[in-house]
Amino acid sequence: MILLKCTRCKKRLAIFFRPYSGESLCQHCFITSVEGQVKRIISKYAMFKPDDRIAIAVSGGKDSVALLHILTKIEKQFPAAEVIAITIDEGIKGYRDEAIRIAKENCKILGVEHVICSFKDLYGYTLDEIVKITRDREMGPCSYCGVLRRRALNIASRKVEADKLATAHNLDDEAQTILLNVIHGDVTRIARVEPVLCAEPPLKFIPRVKPICEIPENEVALYAYLLGIKFQSTPCPYIGTALRHEIRHILNRLETRHPGVKFTIIRMAEKIRPMLKKGLTPVELQRCRVCGEPTTGNICKPCEALRKLDFLKY
Amino acid sequence: MILLKCTRCKKRLAIFFRPYSGESLCQHCFITSVEGQVKRIISKYAMFKPDDRIAIAVSGGKDSVALLHILTKIEKQFPAAEVIAITIDEGIKGYRDEAIRIAKENCKILGVEHVICSFKDLYGYTLDEIVKITRDREMGPCSYCGVLRRRALNIASRKVEADKLATAHNLDDEAQTILLNVIHGDVTRIARVEPVLCAEPPLKFIPRVKPICEIPENEVALYAYLLGIKFQSTPCPYIGTALRHEIRHILNRLETRHPGVKFTIIRMAEKIRPMLKKGLTPVELQRCRVCGEPTTGNICKPCEALRKLDFLKY
Repeated sequence: MILLKCTRCKKRLAIFFRPYSGESLCQHCFITSVEGQVKRIISKYAMFKPDDRIAIAVSGGKDSVALLHILTKIEKQFPAAEVIAITIDEGIKGYRDEAIRIAKENCKILGVEHVICSFKDLYGYTLDEIVKITRDREMGPCSYCGVLRRRALNIASRKVEADKLATAHNLDDEAQTILLNVIHGDVTRIARVEPVLCAEPPLKFIPRVKPICEIPENEVALYAYLLGIKFQSTPCPYIGTALRHEIRHILNRLETRHPGVKFTIIRMAEKIRPMLKKGLTPVELQRCRVCGEPTTGNICKPCEALRKLDFLKY
Repeated sequence: MILLKCTRCKKRLAIFFRPYSGESLCQHCFITSVEGQVKRIISKYAMFKPDDRIAIAVSGGKDSVALLHILTKIEKQFPAAEVIAITIDEGIKGYRDEAIRIAKENCKILGVEHVICSFKDLYGYTLDEIVKITRDREMGPCSYCGVLRRRALNIASRKVEADKLATAHNLDDEAQTILLNVIHGDVTRIARVEPVLCAEPPLKFIPRVKPICEIPENEVALYAYLLGIKFQSTPCPYIGTALRHEIRHILNRLETRHPGVKFTIIRMAEKIRPMLKKGLTPVELQRCRVCGEPTTGNICKPCEALRKLDFLKY
């Protein structure tokens, strides 16, 4: 067995090989490098102001808990900035309870305020109840959950008076979404996969940022592991769509043989995004007629979903 | 075993199931449907005028031989139109000789003029010689062959005074190329995968058209088989790039589980193409300083390749 020295410090033994850059990194340099990358992403996309109140969406999984740790560390250098963790309790028995406990523990360790916001309180239904009502209908649990969770995060961020909402989408998530949209032929969504998402005031949409959107999933996982960060590792019982799983496998296989492919895909999307935005009719956001939240149609997706549920229940 | 009736004629037994449309087709309706599709593609992209002299690039493989048969049949309805077959003899021992014989046979059956144009005559080298010279160099045989074959086809089309050059790229080729360009992050090339490719006069570039670019590969193969068309089935000894093979597998697997994926991908490219073209700096074609052929730089790719060969030889 050949023991490699770290490419950066040239002193300590390497514990990680980064195929797309050719670097071998020791534990210390790996951690510094991930944190440096996140700082670079934040500054490249001008994600934060020095006095921002930043809500972090913390599900309790490795990505969101790692994001919580990294952002808390970075924002300590900006005394006027604040971070606050938000966990959405969709109401999934035997799964979300553990996640909330883990999120709470991490916030306590870091001294970060933690706010929990539940589907039951906001919408009158838990996800488990929604699944029971909608069983065998065209819209699966993930479609309901996605729409309602995004809305819940916006409401909760507003409640805690956040200036930004940070989510833990990593490089793999983003590359998968782009390829998924290519395969679905969904041009509008290709244009919309971006590191920062805003809406014009007076719409009450808290700008969303993705500070780890260029960090590979395996590096986020290793970061959390090396720092001894606790996270939930059991997957959601209502697993995602089959096609996303396939795309995930395809990209991982491609990345093994052609390191850097995931980066190339998001760079490609970055290059064509402004051209697509110019070419597509701009999406005009307006207030939903039912709840007043920002939407592209007359009635927003969450209200549509909830109406359907009320209808299906009887 | 359940024997299905043809969805179209509702009389004969089906021999082919088309997953993306849900149709079951008998031999007669399948053949008519493929030919109808080709007519639709030709008219959708306004590929031909009624009095065009059309050069068809015939390698001898199933796609090009099927294209030769279909176009000859369609153009019979336009008495002022003419077709002429062009085969490029790259000089690949034990492979191209058989292909040329097959191309010749098909032309004879159809009563179509056949012109052969060789790398040796045009460039002074056969591909076999090029492979020997360039062994272990950065540019593989396929890169040389691609560049030199495209140029040879343009020269040959001009020699036979063709108005158009038709190539046999099928749906699979096109979807693979698009996905390959997405994965390579090559935005310019995503914009350039199109059914019709032209250049402004006075450049001596014969417009290229792809009349079977929306016909799936397996349907082209079945068409050729059902009509008893002879074609070369042995693959080129200098197999293509590894990445294209992977993409081919990926797309075929995806298509099995999600019929229509290949169509969705080319439709997506169709939608974004005009936006990309507007956004990208237009490529100005000019005359190559060495040979006068159309090129984007000062010296065209074939001349560059040939210079390199002359240099490497000594």
